Amino acid sequence: MTTAEQTYDVIVLGAGSTGENVADIATRGGLSTVLVESELVGGECSYWACMPSKALLRGSEALAQARAVSGAAAAVTGEQDVAATLDRRDGFTSHWDDAGQAQWVDSAGITLVRGHGRLAGEKRVVVAQDDGTELVLLARHAVAVCTGSRGAVPPVEGLADVQPWTPREATSAKEAPGRLLVLGGGYVGSEMATAWQQLGSSVTLLQRGSRLLPALEPAAGEAVEASLREMGVDVRLGSEVRSARREDGGDVVLTTADGEFRGDEVLVATGRAANTDEIGLDTVGLEPSRYLDVDESLQVPGVPWLYGVGDVNGRQQLTHMGKYQARQAGAAIVARARDEQVDLADWSPFVATADRRATPSVVFTDPQVAAVGLTAAQAADAGVPHRVVEYPIGSIAGASLFADGYAGTAIAVVDTEREVLLGVTFVGSGVAELLHSATIAVVGEVPISRLWHAVPSYPTISEIWLRLLETYRG
Amino acid sequence: MTTAEQTYDVIVLGAGSTGENVADIATRGGLSTVLVESELVGGECSYWACMPSKALLRGSEALAQARAVSGAAAAVTGEQDVAATLDRRDGFTSHWDDAGQAQWVDSAGITLVRGHGRLAGEKRVVVAQDDGTELVLLARHAVAVCTGSRGAVPPVEGLADVQPWTPREATSAKEAPGRLLVLGGGYVGSEMATAWQQLGSSVTLLQRGSRLLPALEPAAGEAVEASLREMGVDVRLGSEVRSARREDGGDVVLTTADGEFRGDEVLVATGRAANTDEIGLDTVGLEPSRYLDVDESLQVPGVPWLYGVGDVNGRQQLTHMGKYQARQAGAAIVARARDEQVDLADWSPFVATADRRATPSVVFTDPQVAAVGLTAAQAADAGVPHRVVEYPIGSIAGASLFADGYAGTAIAVVDTEREVLLGVTFVGSGVAELLHSATIAVVGEVPISRLWHAVPSYPTISEIWLRLLETYRG
Repeated sequence: MTTAEQTYDVIVLGAGSTGENVADIATRGGLSTVLVESELVGGECSYWACMPSKALLRGSEALAQARAVSGAAAAVTGEQDVAATLDRRDGFTSHWDDAGQAQWVDSAGITLVRGHGRLAGEKRVVVAQDDGTELVLLARHAVAVCTGSRGAVPPVEGLADVQPWTPREATSAKEAPGRLLVLGGGYVGSEMATAWQQLGSSVTLLQRGSRLLPALEPAAGEAVEASLREMGVDVRLGSEVRSARREDGGDVVLTTADGEFRGDEVLVATGRAANTDEIGLDTVGLEPSRYLDVDESLQVPGVPWLYGVGDVNGRQQLTHMGKYQARQAGAAIVARARDEQVDLADWSPFVATADRRATPSVVFTDPQVAAVGLTAAQAADAGVPHRVVEYPIGSIAGASLFADGYAGTAIAVVDTEREVLLGVTFVGSGVAELLHSATIAVVGEVPISRLWHAVPSYPTISEIWLRLLETYRG
Repeated sequence: MTTAEQTYDVIVLGAGSTGENVADIATRGGLSTVLVESELVGGECSYWACMPSKALLRGSEALAQARAVSGAAAAVTGEQDVAATLDRRDGFTSHWDDAGQAQWVDSAGITLVRGHGRLAGEKRVVVAQDDGTELVLLARHAVAVCTGSRGAVPPVEGLADVQPWTPREATSAKEAPGRLLVLGGGYVGSEMATAWQQLGSSVTLLQRGSRLLPALEPAAGEAVEASLREMGVDVRLGSEVRSARREDGGDVVLTTADGEFRGDEVLVATGRAANTDEIGLDTVGLEPSRYLDVDESLQVPGVPWLYGVGDVNGRQQLTHMGKYQARQAGAAIVARARDEQVDLADWSPFVATADRRATPSVVFTDPQVAAVGLTAAQAADAGVPHRVVEYPIGSIAGASLFADGYAGTAIAVVDTEREVLLGVTFVGSGVAELLHSATIAVVGEVPISRLWHAVPSYPTISEIWLRLLETYRG
């Protein structure tokens, strides 16, 4: 086997959006950077997560919104063209071809190595290249592990053997299955149940816990549950799967205490696992198969040249937070390479403070759920003195103009000592773009007294802000 | 004539949304309050402006958004039901019946007097009541003039005689005119041209200046002009009307240097005038027929018991800004009645700082225009050191998911000395709800360095924020 050796300032393992951003920041900072990828450049988000899932959901959303306006509804006399929607989804994944992204990497001045990379001691990565040769990479300054995570199949008897869908198959399926079983009622399960039910499948959603979207405000999961039921999804809460089998006829059968559930396919969306099994962590004294422990600058404690950025550290498994961490870690890598001071105080350019304080997320169900910062439960757990204010979005003029019978809720958690927002949740049709107002308010720690001067334009749904402030004032 | 006399702490002239809010704040502050209204309680916005205009526009918007998503487009095979849209509009105006609003006034503990009120010396208002009797109202603390403004007809030969539509007739028309002439390309003219063209009229829009929406960033007017032309509106820029006449057959004919334009109706949307002609301003030493001059707490200089709130002061003629001024002026009235200190510093609870620094507005055209704070031209005029950054919204993943071929622009004006935002403009489909993020950033004076921690959720259109920051960083 031919073995070549190359030295770079920075080695980045994994060319998902997180790895791309670390490499980009390092390169812009004047560091030579190599990016190692064994699958598609662009990663999970581009091909098997955010992009295809939202493309599957958007057509149904646009139609539901038009149907919700009398006058407009009369024009929606046909059905969604599912084949065209799947084609559109394929376009958004570039038909699972990463040529465009590879071209961007090249244009950004980053070296791309295609193959499987694993650490082999300090600042050393060995890549089994796709062409069969081996390449040894040496890092002058840093190695950033951005290998992400994957859908994990829980240890349920027989489940792994039925060839279940992971989020990858759920977002890339070539047609709607007749009957789809969905295991797990987090955001992936809720979104995919919504998408495929709307595209023609009969979906059964099995959730072990007592509500959907358990990490969010209870009102969110309740609203999504009600709407899933209304669109015909069979939602089963408190439903634990004991075993799974695939019958000769092709049916997947899941057995629970409530009986058996049958489907053509089963999506397992119960959690994720870190891609840290086969990247040589043991060669630098770390334990494989676990999320990487990192500090606020995404540096691995005790291994100062090593960073764990994005899903792989388990802090916040969201594309935008991976990219955020990438910007912060990238800045820290560049500064340390220059022997510059790296300020680890909250909100400095080198730390990912928003991971703890202001992580935004949008669940693209119908209604959408858009949340940032702490929920009421999290504020209580953290022992922060707070008050929760809630207001129905449907009574906002802009919402009733947006859709007849608009139903939605806004929940704000206010720090009563500092008089700033700790978190905000919006539940309702089309609330995704409202979220950034809350994110800026939380991150900016804008005092409530100042927020009164931030006047929402009439008649937009954003006028919910005024009602929340009035409700807080009492 | 019977004349009764009543004394209240506060007299509010005009029960539009501004007057309602002044009265509400005063009442909550423990002051007895009387509200005088000669037309419908709820005012312009509820019956002849924001509400009906947005109801006329929303159906077309929802359909355009569905048609812009391949897959969904296939389902939009019919036409908008114009009669149903007009019915929906009628519902939003409560069929021009103010019983619901009058009930709210009553439930808020405010006394409502129906009739025409005019000042008659210090703290004294005489109301010619609708029942023919006269009522003298005396104010212990304050009189707030909230009489608003009206569409003004410019002094063009013959124009007043053709019985032109003002914004009132344009928003309340019972059917789409066959041919509609629109005079004025500000936000009313642009919105109404959009609405009626989409509802079946053939619209000709005559704008005296060289672009539409002249108060906003040039990109806004350019985008709206292009889309109006594409939907079939005959847009004429630099077109000054010299005379108007209505012919025997019913046609309205406008004469310009470019020739004659004919229509069934003509909407005059070239500006507004203060409703200060007949409210007895001369009895307290002020000149009628002009906008009321007020200080930052909306108090009339030299007449400390008199306030001018909302459109009537000409500061910012927008419903939400009237309501904002009402909250600030109401707080000042209550504080002064209690002999409490009224802080006139920027952003205090008693002043309308956002009038100058952070007025948001949304033009509900297609594309929408959402803007807050200073434009580049205004920043230059004010001599503030600044930089303008611009980014095409269509290249944001969330925008391309939202609509095929999404076209839009975001423009941010950054104060390069203080490193905060002075203003932001979004142009594009569905950007109305993005605006409040910018409003909070401008009002909160959130430093650019902190805004980097406000992570937009992927894939929302709000990711434009990240691109603006990157563009600013360079």
